[in-house]
Amino acid sequence: MWHSDQVPKRVDHDQRRREIAEALFRIAATQSLQAVTLRAVAAEAGISMFQVQYYFPAKEQMLQYAWHRITELSGERSGRSIAEALRTGDERAVVRACLLSVLPTDERSRMLCAVQIAYFAVDVTRGGQPPDQQAMLPHLVRLLAGQLDQAQQRGGVPAHFDTRLEADALATMTAGLLSAMLVEAYDTEQATRIIDYRLGHLFAG
Amino acid sequence: MWHSDQVPKRVDHDQRRREIAEALFRIAATQSLQAVTLRAVAAEAGISMFQVQYYFPAKEQMLQYAWHRITELSGERSGRSIAEALRTGDERAVVRACLLSVLPTDERSRMLCAVQIAYFAVDVTRGGQPPDQQAMLPHLVRLLAGQLDQAQQRGGVPAHFDTRLEADALATMTAGLLSAMLVEAYDTEQATRIIDYRLGHLFAG
Repeated sequence: MWHSDQVPKRVDHDQRRREIAEALFRIAATQSLQAVTLRAVAAEAGISMFQVQYYFPAKEQMLQYAWHRITELSGERSGRSIAEALRTGDERAVVRACLLSVLPTDERSRMLCAVQIAYFAVDVTRGGQPPDQQAMLPHLVRLLAGQLDQAQQRGGVPAHFDTRLEADALATMTAGLLSAMLVEAYDTEQATRIIDYRLGHLFAG
Repeated sequence: MWHSDQVPKRVDHDQRRREIAEALFRIAATQSLQAVTLRAVAAEAGISMFQVQYYFPAKEQMLQYAWHRITELSGERSGRSIAEALRTGDERAVVRACLLSVLPTDERSRMLCAVQIAYFAVDVTRGGQPPDQQAMLPHLVRLLAGQLDQAQQRGGVPAHFDTRLEADALATMTAGLLSAMLVEAYDTEQATRIIDYRLGHLFAG
C-alpha cells in the first residue's frame, strides 16, 4: 500500500519541476537567461516563490535542472526519429534522422534551441572557466561515425571517404544550420536540401 | 592649415570610441552582454562616465557601435588573409582563407567570437522580434559560391558538385566549428584538418 502513497508523489514532484523549467524556458527564450530569477519564474509559472524555492533553493540549481531538462527533451525528440530510422536498417536514413532531428523546425524546437544558445553564450563568456555544459557534439559525431563506418563496410559509402572527418563535417554543419535557422538565414526546406545534398554525395560516392 | 586642426581630432574621437568598445568586449567576454552598462564600461576603460556618455548618450548606442566595430574587426582580419590568397589566383586558397579566417585561433579572436555569440544569443532570445544583426553568413556563402563557380569553370571543381549547396555546407560547417572551438570540442589543428579534408574532396573531385 505504501507504493500508492509514494509513486504519485514522485510523479507530481517531477511534473512540478518540469513546469518550473518550462516557465524558465519561456523567460529565457523571450528575454534572456539573465532575466531568469526565482521570482520571475514563479510569476511565469503561476505559483508562489515558496513553491519554486521548495524545489530549487537557489537560482543556480534551477538553471542546472533546466539545462538537464533541455538535453533530456532534445534527446527524446532525436531518439524517437533515430529509433524509427534504425528500424529501416538503412544507415543513410539513420544519419539523416540524426541531423534533421536537432534542427529547429517548429515553434517548440525553435524555443528550445534559442534557450540552448543562451546557455551556450553564458558558457563561452566567462573567460577561462571550463564550460558547464555536457558537450552534445562529440556524442553526435560518434553516432554519425559509427553509422558511416557500418555503411562503408557494407559498400554504401565509398572507401575513399574518411568516416570520422565526414562525421565531424556533418555534425558541425548541422550546428551551423541550427544557428542560421534561428535568424532565418535558412528555413527547414533549405536546411533539408543542404543535408540531403551532402548525404547524396557521401552515400552515392 | 585647418586640416591639421581637424584631422587629429577625428582620429582621437575614433580612437576613443574604439577604446570604449574594447572595454565593452572585455566585460561581455568575461561576464555577459547583460553586465554591460555605461558605468561598468567607463570603469573598465579607466575613463569617466561623463566621457563615455559624450560618445554614447545611451547604452543601446554603445552596444550598436560595438557590434559595428566587431564586424569591422572581423572583416579586417578576414580581408587580410583573403587578399593574400587572391594574389595567388588559386580559388582553393581563397576558399580556405575565407573559412579559416573566421575561426577563433588565438586569444584575441576567441574573445571577439565569444562576444559575437553573446550578441547572437540576445538576438535569438527575443521572441518574434527581427534580428538586429546584419547576417554575415549570406555574405560568406556568396563569396564561396563565386569562387567555387570560377574554379568549376576552370575545371578545378568537378561538374557534379552544386557550387551553391557546397557553399552553404562549407559556410555552416565553419559556423559550427567556430562554436565548437569556443568550448574546446576542436582545436585549430583539428578544425583545419576538417576544412582541408572537405576541400580535398571538392577540388580534387
